[in-house]
Amino acid sequence: MDFRKKLAIEPGSTVSLADINPEQDGGIESKEEGKEKLSGILDEITPLQEMLYAEKKHALLIVLQGIDAAGKDGVCWHVIRAMNPQGTYVASFKQPTEVEKAHDFLWRVHQRVPAMGQVAVFNRSHYEDVLVARVHNLVSKQVWSKRYHEINNFEEFLTENGVTIVKFFLYISKDEQLERFEKRLEDKDRQWKISASDYAERDRWDEYIEAYEAMLSHCSTAHAPWYVIPANRKWFRNLAAADIIHRAMLDMQIESPRPTVDIDEIYRRYHHAVREA
Amino acid sequence: MDFRKKLAIEPGSTVSLADINPEQDGGIESKEEGKEKLSGILDEITPLQEMLYAEKKHALLIVLQGIDAAGKDGVCWHVIRAMNPQGTYVASFKQPTEVEKAHDFLWRVHQRVPAMGQVAVFNRSHYEDVLVARVHNLVSKQVWSKRYHEINNFEEFLTENGVTIVKFFLYISKDEQLERFEKRLEDKDRQWKISASDYAERDRWDEYIEAYEAMLSHCSTAHAPWYVIPANRKWFRNLAAADIIHRAMLDMQIESPRPTVDIDEIYRRYHHAVREA
Repeated sequence: MDFRKKLAIEPGSTVSLADINPEQDGGIESKEEGKEKLSGILDEITPLQEMLYAEKKHALLIVLQGIDAAGKDGVCWHVIRAMNPQGTYVASFKQPTEVEKAHDFLWRVHQRVPAMGQVAVFNRSHYEDVLVARVHNLVSKQVWSKRYHEINNFEEFLTENGVTIVKFFLYISKDEQLERFEKRLEDKDRQWKISASDYAERDRWDEYIEAYEAMLSHCSTAHAPWYVIPANRKWFRNLAAADIIHRAMLDMQIESPRPTVDIDEIYRRYHHAVREA
Repeated sequence: MDFRKKLAIEPGSTVSLADINPEQDGGIESKEEGKEKLSGILDEITPLQEMLYAEKKHALLIVLQGIDAAGKDGVCWHVIRAMNPQGTYVASFKQPTEVEKAHDFLWRVHQRVPAMGQVAVFNRSHYEDVLVARVHNLVSKQVWSKRYHEINNFEEFLTENGVTIVKFFLYISKDEQLERFEKRLEDKDRQWKISASDYAERDRWDEYIEAYEAMLSHCSTAHAPWYVIPANRKWFRNLAAADIIHRAMLDMQIESPRPTVDIDEIYRRYHHAVREA
């Protein structure tokens, strides 16, 4: 199944998350079947990333957004791990520092854009500046409402300069979030993850949904599409994300770079043998 | 087996690599047994790294050095992958840029030192400044000979500030290197890795060995020891590196952070139930 086609937000469309079922499983029979499919896709991602790293003509930027407990870390752990850590990194964007706040909102983000040959994952991103900034009135409407087209221009610029952008909104239901919070409460090793603000944010669920819908409606573009990943089922979330990343990498038409030396000559000179034809 | 004890360079000792057998297998019966042991250790590293990330009171810096094809990338791939990419990164130090060259040699390195909670792998490092810089006379002897104690002071400073440092010299034999080069020549997807300079560097093998010995003799300290990893056998290299990393992490006495909220109160208020004692 082509999850890219199935889960992409059509540019220019108006998104209503109520129309999307976070419980979806893509018609896959069982969790086991899903995991098997995932494993097959990861096996194909590995050599593609090695080639991307070698070729140094493309970069891949994966943007992860989602409400608390939606599974942003899980995607890093289960999908990104198929790639050699050598050419991959995760950039987490937390509350901006004083220095960052003294710059425009894209300044800190631009610094973490992957170089050619690299894969970067943004765990939260510049989209926080139209999400938390909007919900909490950190800036005026006049300011955040301009940001949608500023982001579109920025992302278009990046894609014109060799960066493929794939954006995942991990979508879980409000009930699922509460269950996941509860699991953290019950696990001594994960209680530290719980903060009072998690629940305060949860109280603003509807406002966040509205902000997510605006983000998805305004910023899913032909060059940098948004995908809404139904994320109640972790195995489906990982599978869908991996499938979309895989297809995006295939589209890059990455090629192993040509050798920079005369292989036959090297062989004769240093390995004292004639290479078989 | 405690590979940390077995493979550490005693501070103050004079190292002769001729006395170390790169073919060593640590008395392990078979490759299969080695891989099984590795897998067990990686399973223990995973939760330790999760806690390190949560606690944010320690950092781990793993320095990888070794001649071309010694397996620096392999260690990233087979050992570091046991850690959540979220809290881990690989910093590769190539030829310094113009800006980097305009600063002292530790300037660019300091920028990539892991923050508390992070694990960083240096794939090559500040030690290149007493290796390639020494072998190729990039700076005078007067300059590079001072660097050993400058490095020791820098590393001591880092360890005093919460960074545990583990340094691996991956040691392969000259024959093994030629075989690995040959495998690259024979593999169309890896021919790009071969450059003429690989062979030019190989011609300076003895000079590099001398520089490695000086580095190991001068810079294996109580706070930041060097380990010589016999690396002809890839499975043994991975196992020894993982074992040493694991023991270093255990020594950190990492603890899951205490919850920042009253768990019972949160439970009652939001989950409408009383937590079982």
